[in-house]
Amino acid sequence: MKFFEQVAAAATRNCSMVCVGLDPDMGKLPEAVKASGKAFFDFNKAIVDATKGLVCCYKPQAAFYAGADRDGELRDTISYIHENAPGVPVILDVKRGDIGSTAAQYAKEAFERYGADAVTVNPYMGLDAVKPFLDYDEKGVIILCRTSNPHSGDLQNLVSGGKALYEHVAELVRDQWNWNGNAALVVGATYPAELAKLRKMCPELPFLVPGVGAQGGSVSEVVKNGATPGWGNLMINSSRGIIFAGSGDDFAEAASRAARKLRDEINSCRA
Amino acid sequence: MKFFEQVAAAATRNCSMVCVGLDPDMGKLPEAVKASGKAFFDFNKAIVDATKGLVCCYKPQAAFYAGADRDGELRDTISYIHENAPGVPVILDVKRGDIGSTAAQYAKEAFERYGADAVTVNPYMGLDAVKPFLDYDEKGVIILCRTSNPHSGDLQNLVSGGKALYEHVAELVRDQWNWNGNAALVVGATYPAELAKLRKMCPELPFLVPGVGAQGGSVSEVVKNGATPGWGNLMINSSRGIIFAGSGDDFAEAASRAARKLRDEINSCRA
Repeated sequence: MKFFEQVAAAATRNCSMVCVGLDPDMGKLPEAVKASGKAFFDFNKAIVDATKGLVCCYKPQAAFYAGADRDGELRDTISYIHENAPGVPVILDVKRGDIGSTAAQYAKEAFERYGADAVTVNPYMGLDAVKPFLDYDEKGVIILCRTSNPHSGDLQNLVSGGKALYEHVAELVRDQWNWNGNAALVVGATYPAELAKLRKMCPELPFLVPGVGAQGGSVSEVVKNGATPGWGNLMINSSRGIIFAGSGDDFAEAASRAARKLRDEINSCRA
Repeated sequence: MKFFEQVAAAATRNCSMVCVGLDPDMGKLPEAVKASGKAFFDFNKAIVDATKGLVCCYKPQAAFYAGADRDGELRDTISYIHENAPGVPVILDVKRGDIGSTAAQYAKEAFERYGADAVTVNPYMGLDAVKPFLDYDEKGVIILCRTSNPHSGDLQNLVSGGKALYEHVAELVRDQWNWNGNAALVVGATYPAELAKLRKMCPELPFLVPGVGAQGGSVSEVVKNGATPGWGNLMINSSRGIIFAGSGDDFAEAASRAARKLRDEINSCRA
């Protein structure tokens, strides 16, 4: 099944637009987990077991595993999700971008070495940087458009021909890069007006929306500006707000409560 | 010693602007090396031994190691260069770009886990994505500006306020992001007019120039448009043209000859 069909099926089954970001950070892990030789995996396993009925997808951020030299635990986490939360797909958040032959190696890394179902990609280098990912037609390719960080406007807001750079990216993805129907956009929750504009421009593209919770984006604004009828075209990511909701022995239950609360808040905004 | 001082010292000592790209690809490795359990490392070791007196820096492309699940050989290659080609710095070509806390993890990956002396970074997300790298003031941070690939103009050539996107990137780096004096630009050899324009805009920034050799960029155009007096502000990368110059048992000698030829060609264009 194609990635976005998987997302829609999981979202429908769990009545959820929630994507849980699996971004372990040794300094923030509960004491009970820290001592383990595979602390990131053990932590993720507990989070997945506690939240798998409440989400439409998971999104591990590769940087946390890379910085901690724990690539094996990233691979094991993705395998664990596939085996123990069947039907819930995994986005590997890598934001890669490089020229053709090199991008092909990164696609191989994400989809074959790690077994991810989707990947985030940076559009700055143009089509060459994105095509090797898009060519995996069963996989999702989620392209940075308007990102949630404070300085995202440094380049993304530059206006050319009456349209901001991020709008040019959205048009490229919508009109030229989506030949396999497997492309989507990253649009930050922290910029609701831009989210509304992009949804109007691209009513059918799925959006991955980070930035609610710790980064301050409003859930109701995201739903109002980004949701469309049905399930699967909006994935609202929360990482720290869910996985670090508790820090004691009951951290998994706290994560489950936080995921349920976010899911229900989203659904009540839709109603 | 700061990265760009290291480059200048190595360039002066070896009379060379050549950067050798260490991009091993199992399908292209000589038969004699392929059989080894650490084929990438053995290949790189032979290339480094044969070229270390002819270069100003090395640039392993992380994607090749990531795609082949050979991260350990990347780390060992960088250590080998530091021990056996002392004073020749290493750029880890990763083109990362992510928000603050995540970029900090990628900086840790490049500079601490792998021990690289410099890194390539993507500017699309703005200052947040670059600052955690720039904060390592001894390390070099080489920011994608005008890349060498065919579709690089998809976004980079969009004109805003009379200037192309890549010119805005150059201005940001020159005027705002270089507070530690450790920033530089990636400018492709395949776009000589843009290279000339950027050199005029940024006479003092070091440029890393990929795209000669297999990608078709002209050495004489690069030197004419990109070089300034002295050593260290131009690093001309060749990967396949050097490391795969030969495919037999004498591959290292062939690489040495190709590196010397490129070095001498560059120097004769400067004269």
